Amino acid sequence: MLAFESALARAQAEEGLIPEASARAIAAACESIRIDEERLVAEGKRSATLAVPLVQMLRAEVARHAKDAAAHVHLGATSQDVLDTAMALCLKSCLEEADRSLEGAVRGLAAKARGHAATPMMGRTLMQPALPITAGLKIARWALALAHDRERLADAQAAGLAVQLGGPVGALEAFGAKGPAVRHRLAMRLALADAPAWHVHRNAWIDLLDRMAQVVATAGKIALDVALLQQAEVAEMLEAPPREGVGASSSMPHKRNPVGCAHALAAATRMPGLIATVHAAAIAAHERALGGWQAELAVVPEIATQLGTSLDFLDGIAASLVVDAARMKANLAAQGGAASVPSHAADELLAALSPYL
Amino acid sequence: MLAFESALARAQAEEGLIPEASARAIAAACESIRIDEERLVAEGKRSATLAVPLVQMLRAEVARHAKDAAAHVHLGATSQDVLDTAMALCLKSCLEEADRSLEGAVRGLAAKARGHAATPMMGRTLMQPALPITAGLKIARWALALAHDRERLADAQAAGLAVQLGGPVGALEAFGAKGPAVRHRLAMRLALADAPAWHVHRNAWIDLLDRMAQVVATAGKIALDVALLQQAEVAEMLEAPPREGVGASSSMPHKRNPVGCAHALAAATRMPGLIATVHAAAIAAHERALGGWQAELAVVPEIATQLGTSLDFLDGIAASLVVDAARMKANLAAQGGAASVPSHAADELLAALSPYL
Amino acid sequence: MLAFESALARAQAEEGLIPEASARAIAAACESIRIDEERLVAEGKRSATLAVPLVQMLRAEVARHAKDAAAHVHLGATSQDVLDTAMALCLKSCLEEADRSLEGAVRGLAAKARGHAATPMMGRTLMQPALPITAGLKIARWALALAHDRERLADAQAAGLAVQLGGPVGALEAFGAKGPAVRHRLAMRLALADAPAWHVHRNAWIDLLDRMAQVVATAGKIALDVALLQQAEVAEMLEAPPREGVGASSSMPHKRNPVGCAHALAAATRMPGLIATVHAAAIAAHERALGGWQAELAVVPEIATQLGTSLDFLDGIAASLVVDAARMKANLAAQGGAASVPSHAADELLAALSPYL
Amino acid sequence: MLAFESALARAQAEEGLIPEASARAIAAACESIRIDEERLVAEGKRSATLAVPLVQMLRAEVARHAKDAAAHVHLGATSQDVLDTAMALCLKSCLEEADRSLEGAVRGLAAKARGHAATPMMGRTLMQPALPITAGLKIARWALALAHDRERLADAQAAGLAVQLGGPVGALEAFGAKGPAVRHRLAMRLALADAPAWHVHRNAWIDLLDRMAQVVATAGKIALDVALLQQAEVAEMLEAPPREGVGASSSMPHKRNPVGCAHALAAATRMPGLIATVHAAAIAAHERALGGWQAELAVVPEIATQLGTSLDFLDGIAASLVVDAARMKANLAAQGGAASVPSHAADELLAALSPYL
Repeated sequence: MLAFESALARAQAEEGLIPEASARAIAAACESIRIDEERLVAEGKRSATLAVPLVQMLRAEVARHAKDAAAHVHLGATSQDVLDTAMALCLKSCLEEADRSLEGAVRGLAAKARGHAATPMMGRTLMQPALPITAGLKIARWALALAHDRERLADAQAAGLAVQLGGPVGALEAFGAKGPAVRHRLAMRLALADAPAWHVHRNAWIDLLDRMAQVVATAGKIALDVALLQQAEVAEMLEAPPREGVGASSSMPHKRNPVGCAHALAAATRMPGLIATVHAAAIAAHERALGGWQAELAVVPEIATQLGTSLDFLDGIAASLVVDAARMKANLAAQGGAASVPSHAADELLAALSPYL
Repeated sequence: MLAFESALARAQAEEGLIPEASARAIAAACESIRIDEERLVAEGKRSATLAVPLVQMLRAEVARHAKDAAAHVHLGATSQDVLDTAMALCLKSCLEEADRSLEGAVRGLAAKARGHAATPMMGRTLMQPALPITAGLKIARWALALAHDRERLADAQAAGLAVQLGGPVGALEAFGAKGPAVRHRLAMRLALADAPAWHVHRNAWIDLLDRMAQVVATAGKIALDVALLQQAEVAEMLEAPPREGVGASSSMPHKRNPVGCAHALAAATRMPGLIATVHAAAIAAHERALGGWQAELAVVPEIATQLGTSLDFLDGIAASLVVDAARMKANLAAQGGAASVPSHAADELLAALSPYL
Repeated sequence: MLAFESALARAQAEEGLIPEASARAIAAACESIRIDEERLVAEGKRSATLAVPLVQMLRAEVARHAKDAAAHVHLGATSQDVLDTAMALCLKSCLEEADRSLEGAVRGLAAKARGHAATPMMGRTLMQPALPITAGLKIARWALALAHDRERLADAQAAGLAVQLGGPVGALEAFGAKGPAVRHRLAMRLALADAPAWHVHRNAWIDLLDRMAQVVATAGKIALDVALLQQAEVAEMLEAPPREGVGASSSMPHKRNPVGCAHALAAATRMPGLIATVHAAAIAAHERALGGWQAELAVVPEIATQLGTSLDFLDGIAASLVVDAARMKANLAAQGGAASVPSHAADELLAALSPYL
Repeated sequence: MLAFESALARAQAEEGLIPEASARAIAAACESIRIDEERLVAEGKRSATLAVPLVQMLRAEVARHAKDAAAHVHLGATSQDVLDTAMALCLKSCLEEADRSLEGAVRGLAAKARGHAATPMMGRTLMQPALPITAGLKIARWALALAHDRERLADAQAAGLAVQLGGPVGALEAFGAKGPAVRHRLAMRLALADAPAWHVHRNAWIDLLDRMAQVVATAGKIALDVALLQQAEVAEMLEAPPREGVGASSSMPHKRNPVGCAHALAAATRMPGLIATVHAAAIAAHERALGGWQAELAVVPEIATQLGTSLDFLDGIAASLVVDAARMKANLAAQGGAASVPSHAADELLAALSPYL
């Protein structure tokens, strides 16, 4: 939020809307201020927005050093401008990390898939043995799904991570004809996309959240597969080699629970409700929502958390997944399956993966 | 489903997997067959898939004219291949219609926005009067949101409307090295994208559904705005000029309910739950889901229906929305608002809209 | 809907609000009328309610035999009165069937639980072997959960299945002081609870729907357990003995898919989204919702359908579940588990079940 | 969690399963221990449960004073026992507060309803003027809905707030025949209901959560009504008299936003997704869920928070709602409505309310 206020003042000074000295004073105060978080929350509740107390605190901080500049804090902006932009900035760094994590997961899984392109295992449908596949095919599918998820997620950021600057009713009325120029400078400074105010038309943003949910679903699917294959009676995969203190039980010391899968499946269980909330919150009245936007603000961090949990799981799987080819063979044989299986299908997937590696 | 079976046989014949005569016989049977829908449903329930009885019926039909060809029906394919492809074909024609409808709505609303670019009205936030905007700005925002929704929806179709052909475990094992070639020919014949089997990695498809939901949300937002503006005490817009028999009440003959808005808001109320279901259903075990895929099959037509309802509403609004500039002026004056408002903001949106017109 | 109109006329005649002859004519017309469903739907769409065309059609039918009585059709009532009451009547008969079905499932499962109270099997947590339990304990838990679900469902009907009669704004204004008496008579005739109009305060009704969802969740949990135990590598239970043509695959004739589980899990996958929609739709503006109520109308039949699907599954499980005690013993031994397990815990559950048998 | 461990040790000592001295030492340690929360979270993540590190920490604390007693900590219990019981204890105190708050809201609104039983105002349906009602009727409906919500919530606690004690697989196997007695003593000590382990059959608990959601929906409905009536063009109600610093805007000092309504509507927007998650999470595999239970743990506090937010809103409305009878009259007149309206309907509701006052 302070990054927004600082960059806004700079952008306004560059467009001649406020004195250069004010911009400097505001930027300095954004560095020096120490926020009393408890007070911020308590006062934010009274106005249903954290922006109101933050701007007050910042004005007070600016006034301590440069009285005249205080009036130039948050000039022409509205609560939603600073909160939405702050949210976009937070998500931006999450998504940079997510991109690296997904890249690593795709590479790690692709390598495992190549190594097992011809390792036969039972293919299962409706939870019953069907026909043999290869372990490489299964893993290559996971990898390709994640590669596509990553690509979609990257695509959605161009429009989805946009600066928010509209002022009270989204019309930038305080800046006259200079509104778009201020907004453009602000966007450049914050390395966000420039776009007209999206206070109540949030689909570019929601598209990004939808695609975060898609990653969580893929991770959930992989976690379900691994957990099923890690069942003692199947024992074809382990999410990781046994490690002291991981997956421990408070009552059964011998257990090794698939905790990575548990985390990923919990995230996948939560995501549909979160995405439903975001879509529901989009039905916003007039020029700023009553209730919907406020609900979305609370839900976006939850969505980012579920994504983070899923990526931790994928990091772990890509690094540590254990494939037990012998057990796969034995299980296949027990069901009368073929002892060898062509790697055609795995090869096709691996070829499709190569542009992403 | 019959289009799939017919095209599959043709593709297989072209690749030399079945005789040309079989392909002809199957294609002919797909034209001549009369499906007993009640039996289809009853038998479909027993196998949890409509494909099992359909294939049986088709085999019987083929066998009546060409006994040997019957064994070539559905060769190497699985239930999910025919059902998912059929769903994609259905959605494809829905989305062609949606695209035309959205194009018309964008044009219609853009024209209204141009006409009211400088018509002052009260901007409202948190359901309270805020500062004046122009009616053109409000309507141009709707139009631009729909233009972007349309664009995103079109983008998602390239990957989302793909043929499904994988056979029992998605490995195209019945076709040997010719698998991808058969699938490619099938895709070409059905004018769908070619892609490896997506039985249990459905995010390209879900992305399309998410974007359908985004359109429904935009329509819901517009409907909420119109319904609020059509309140008797506000009276700044009407969803349409009063028409005999539309919006009638069973108890109050004088009423003119905003029925278009009611339909669009009902669709928007349903969509979050439907999208949540689709995301939840994506956590599919192994090579074919147990429960999840079956749930998705039932939900996709519901999603298409909500989209259709929303588009009907948008068609109506684009054609018939009534803007009462005098009342807007009077309401503004009653709140002490300015009598004239610059059209800067509306002009920026209209410029952003021009590539879509 | 016709049952409502007929009973309403009778109740009004009994209170002296309309002539006895009118009530007779209306009741007769409700028997004789043939509804043109296509027209009903088309016209219903224009008013966003099926009640408007239905009342028109009924008035026309009454007028054919008793001109004066036509004006007494639907007197003082509103669309929502007839639609909500009709929905309650439909749900009432669904729930009577559900109650019988649940009773049978509880009895059937309790009998199986008694038979296997001391049959040892592996208890599994987080999808890993934990400690031994008995098959009877597991099945008795299912049965007790269903017995409690049934009890809760029955409890919710007292308040949830109420007549709806409020007139245009819920105040029964057309009936003067006789409003509550008419409503009471109507409720008696339709065997529904009597309650003040619940047009926009629907929690007694929603409570019933929530509890229907609880049954579907229990069925889903049982289905997941059975599907996991029916995995070839585990093979401790089958949802039913193999039957010709049930659970068939279109590609693999040898397969026996757990189709009952697939249906129940699909229902359980759909229910959270449906329940979310019902809760969302409850935020109704003023004296009748715009959008929310209309969404709920469409969703209630879906909820009833998921319940029906779940009950079919439970009927099947209660009648046909196969428990393979030998395989359970072998699997336990393979994990080093005890060969015999006390039946304490199963006995406690069976005792808790006895009042429900 | 410590309350559980302490009471469990006491209950076990009373049943002679551990020495009295151990129970005393454990209870003392539960008082003296200082939890390192950061370590708790970090280690909890590794086992996907906070119980594992908590029990370790507690054992260490006990061992400092009574070495032999350390082995008696958490004896025979499992992670889910302590976590579910702790959750029930937390919810119990939330619900006690909720009950008082709802009681006050019902009383406060009933008083306002009585005062306005004959104050005419426009009844509105589908967001259009319909027929006159009285303000007292509208407010009495809110109050009666809350009274019923409160009653349902209280009813659900008898079964929903139960102790959880089952041990690793829910069979209380460590306690032999004494299992139920230990559980009963534990329940008495914690003032929770006694019930067989509900690890994977959670509907009594979910029923409680569903009913919390019902309260949030009623609050959301009231908030929507108030926000609509507080619109400047309607101006028939205010959520509270204007107060310095409440409902402030960061850009428009003159604004008085309905912040109570914003909070309540945000809570109502979030609740459907949360309830959907709880229902989805109920589909638990075998004797302890993988993912579902973990998701529920994270969501229950969110549900309690939304309830708390809604109750704050209701407290405010019950204390401070402003009804502008003159404006109601003027708005009615402007739509040609009747100047006086009988209070029959309000009187019926007030009579129905009297048992709750």
